[in-house]
Amino acid sequence: MIRVLVNGALGRMGQEAVQAIKNSHTLSLVGECGRGDDLYAAVKHSSAQVVLDFTTPDAVFKNTQAILEAKARPVIGTTGLMSAQIAELQAQAKRLGLGGMIVPNFSLAAVLMMKAAAQWIKYFPKVEIIEKHHEGKIDAPSGTALRTAELMAAAREVQMSNREERILVEGARGANVQGIPIHSLRLPGLVAHQEIIFGGSDETLTITHDSIHRRSFMPGVLLACEKVMDLNELVYGLESILE
Amino acid sequence: MIRVLVNGALGRMGQEAVQAIKNSHTLSLVGECGRGDDLYAAVKHSSAQVVLDFTTPDAVFKNTQAILEAKARPVIGTTGLMSAQIAELQAQAKRLGLGGMIVPNFSLAAVLMMKAAAQWIKYFPKVEIIEKHHEGKIDAPSGTALRTAELMAAAREVQMSNREERILVEGARGANVQGIPIHSLRLPGLVAHQEIIFGGSDETLTITHDSIHRRSFMPGVLLACEKVMDLNELVYGLESILE
Amino acid sequence: MIRVLVNGALGRMGQEAVQAIKNSHTLSLVGECGRGDDLYAAVKHSSAQVVLDFTTPDAVFKNTQAILEAKARPVIGTTGLMSAQIAELQAQAKRLGLGGMIVPNFSLAAVLMMKAAAQWIKYFPKVEIIEKHHEGKIDAPSGTALRTAELMAAAREVQMSNREERILVEGARGANVQGIPIHSLRLPGLVAHQEIIFGGSDETLTITHDSIHRRSFMPGVLLACEKVMDLNELVYGLESILE
Amino acid sequence: MIRVLVNGALGRMGQEAVQAIKNSHTLSLVGECGRGDDLYAAVKHSSAQVVLDFTTPDAVFKNTQAILEAKARPVIGTTGLMSAQIAELQAQAKRLGLGGMIVPNFSLAAVLMMKAAAQWIKYFPKVEIIEKHHEGKIDAPSGTALRTAELMAAAREVQMSNREERILVEGARGANVQGIPIHSLRLPGLVAHQEIIFGGSDETLTITHDSIHRRSFMPGVLLACEKVMDLNELVYGLESILE
Repeated sequence: MIRVLVNGALGRMGQEAVQAIKNSHTLSLVGECGRGDDLYAAVKHSSAQVVLDFTTPDAVFKNTQAILEAKARPVIGTTGLMSAQIAELQAQAKRLGLGGMIVPNFSLAAVLMMKAAAQWIKYFPKVEIIEKHHEGKIDAPSGTALRTAELMAAAREVQMSNREERILVEGARGANVQGIPIHSLRLPGLVAHQEIIFGGSDETLTITHDSIHRRSFMPGVLLACEKVMDLNELVYGLESILE
Repeated sequence: MIRVLVNGALGRMGQEAVQAIKNSHTLSLVGECGRGDDLYAAVKHSSAQVVLDFTTPDAVFKNTQAILEAKARPVIGTTGLMSAQIAELQAQAKRLGLGGMIVPNFSLAAVLMMKAAAQWIKYFPKVEIIEKHHEGKIDAPSGTALRTAELMAAAREVQMSNREERILVEGARGANVQGIPIHSLRLPGLVAHQEIIFGGSDETLTITHDSIHRRSFMPGVLLACEKVMDLNELVYGLESILE
Repeated sequence: MIRVLVNGALGRMGQEAVQAIKNSHTLSLVGECGRGDDLYAAVKHSSAQVVLDFTTPDAVFKNTQAILEAKARPVIGTTGLMSAQIAELQAQAKRLGLGGMIVPNFSLAAVLMMKAAAQWIKYFPKVEIIEKHHEGKIDAPSGTALRTAELMAAAREVQMSNREERILVEGARGANVQGIPIHSLRLPGLVAHQEIIFGGSDETLTITHDSIHRRSFMPGVLLACEKVMDLNELVYGLESILE
Repeated sequence: MIRVLVNGALGRMGQEAVQAIKNSHTLSLVGECGRGDDLYAAVKHSSAQVVLDFTTPDAVFKNTQAILEAKARPVIGTTGLMSAQIAELQAQAKRLGLGGMIVPNFSLAAVLMMKAAAQWIKYFPKVEIIEKHHEGKIDAPSGTALRTAELMAAAREVQMSNREERILVEGARGANVQGIPIHSLRLPGLVAHQEIIFGGSDETLTITHDSIHRRSFMPGVLLACEKVMDLNELVYGLESILE
């Protein structure tokens, strides 16, 4: 059993993670920390091998440093680390010979979707994204849709020429992100959904991801906590541990 | 057998209609006219009971007058008639005691979709439209999507308050048509598709119409040619003859 | 405010209903009963105008009798009443001049879907149903799918001839319910979903209902509690109070 | 320009291929053969580098032998070759140092779909297939659905236990192919469609392929004719030349 401590255990993701680790047959929950606790001391005291961090953007850099100093492997689900900070943490992990992961999106399905999308665009360069979320989500487009569009734009090998368009009502063709339109729906009854539609000659190919609860992140959280034991560097993204 | 003459028989819709009438067991094709033919004389000579018109906006008013004068029942699939012209034609039809139909959309499915949408919005006032068309369609949103949104907005009984939104890339939330967002996709491999998504409490209800060829208009064309025989006034829209 | 008592208040649906009534601006919760309580006395004591019953098949007949005797209007969400029992209860309600409702499915969306389906089949007689549910649902097809197929078969006006089929693996074409195939999927990540696909000439028309929580029944529950006040007989099905 | 001869040029696929090669900027059509022509002589006479074969199961083995003997590279779109025949042709191609391809499915999209499906099932072992085709298709399930299920079953790493099920109407749960249910719909208005739905913890991931015309095979046909020039053996399946 891998010994895991959860930092940010009272947050929404933290609570789900605590529950998921308790139900796991390969991981053992050895501690829960929150705001105000001494993370370094808690890691030392619990002999945690892995520390899962779901805290806040302003705390995450110091937390990751403390985890590494305490000789545990960080699995960071908190957003907000800047490139320079990531580089510094990677150097620190290398010095200490410790594996670790920074994971902006723990959804295995979302990562598989993005990997396939970046591959398929080579054969089907014309693509649009529809993302649908619950009414409470005020940002549009969603972060996942933006990231998907950027990954696909980077992988697209052909130059796209502009279509002639006559826009009768502004906004009809969605948000243009590097030539890829994103359409954002916000309605009650929805949770978190994304469709990527590739248009070809008399055919379309579509990937759809429907998530109805943040529990859907837990298989990715558990997988990261297991796989981080085999790493000896600090890597970025769940995709780095998928085949 | 009802005797039908097709005006505009060489156009794309006209050709399909000629074919469909030839295959029909209730309609008989008694004539085909085109640009340059004398429509009045052709109707008289063929003893047509119904004249189906698929011509051009600049010709449709005079055509409809000629059809009525020749004592046939017009079924008008050509767009471009203005309100005042429609009123004048309705008065003429009434004087002559002749039925007739002006049909902007012969798709039975589209009409059923719009009728249901206008009814459902009373129970589910939050709704968005996605319409997807082939690359060659330069207008956005589509005419059907605009008409659907207008019909729903007119039927909606509650006042919608504005959601808080943070638009990260302009256009993400689509075209706002009377408070109903329309999202327009344009891709190869698509033909003509529309989804209307109603959001409720932990549920959504969706109508989807997928059309892959203009042949899909023909059942509506045939139905109109049959039902116009039972009318004694000039009516507007396929919906006027559906139950 | 309409005074409502919930019978079966500790069950899953009962708890949701209690919560929904507490949040309502038109209904007032005046009592909660459960197994072992004297329902007649509780109705009398609370002066409830409406009693909402979410109990068990073996108790529902006696419960409905008691509600009517106590001069309240029953809204029955419990299944299990037989035709003869319903007739007897309707006679009792009539004698007492009391409205009431027996509602096997409180989902407004499901009822709208079935009404549209029964109408559309007149124009599109070829139709199939796909229903998708969570892994825990052992019955297949779902009750809603069966009921939808029966309603459509009853409304279908044309006689369907058999297609030639070569079944390579048994079951491929689904469950045949009066000539309408039903396909049942059972997977984790799903909750309760149904699609009705109508096939036409080069087009399809589809209704999709996605429900992700039993809270989706609550708008129908609240509507029934309000509308029952305007009734003076015991009616069956939410459809009887929809326009 | 690569010199291509089409054998079976008058069949449906052959005609489409002739048209597609005429429109290509990298391929040049140097000959068309049909039933009764001497294929070996035609290849020699036209100096074709690649021969595309869309003929019949009884002719395909001899055709492929003749193409190789004439020192051209075969791209075989005809089905019906048996394993032993394929092995023999592969030996012949090797002896002659000639590349070639046997391609049961030229749809790039279908091949990408199957590759992704075989990968995703490692993370999402619970999966079902829905395939929808036009009324005229009498076989069920479709060949593509069967092949997809077999590929996924072979890639699935976990042992699936049986769910408890209560089948109210026979066939509801579809065709069971190695533990993967396939649901086959047949309706007018459909062409060729397949969905693969992976069920996870509170999420689903779906691939959908919609093809509306056999023209959708042409990009795969053209790609095969180009890539076969770089091969020096006879390979099977379009997947062997995709990255």
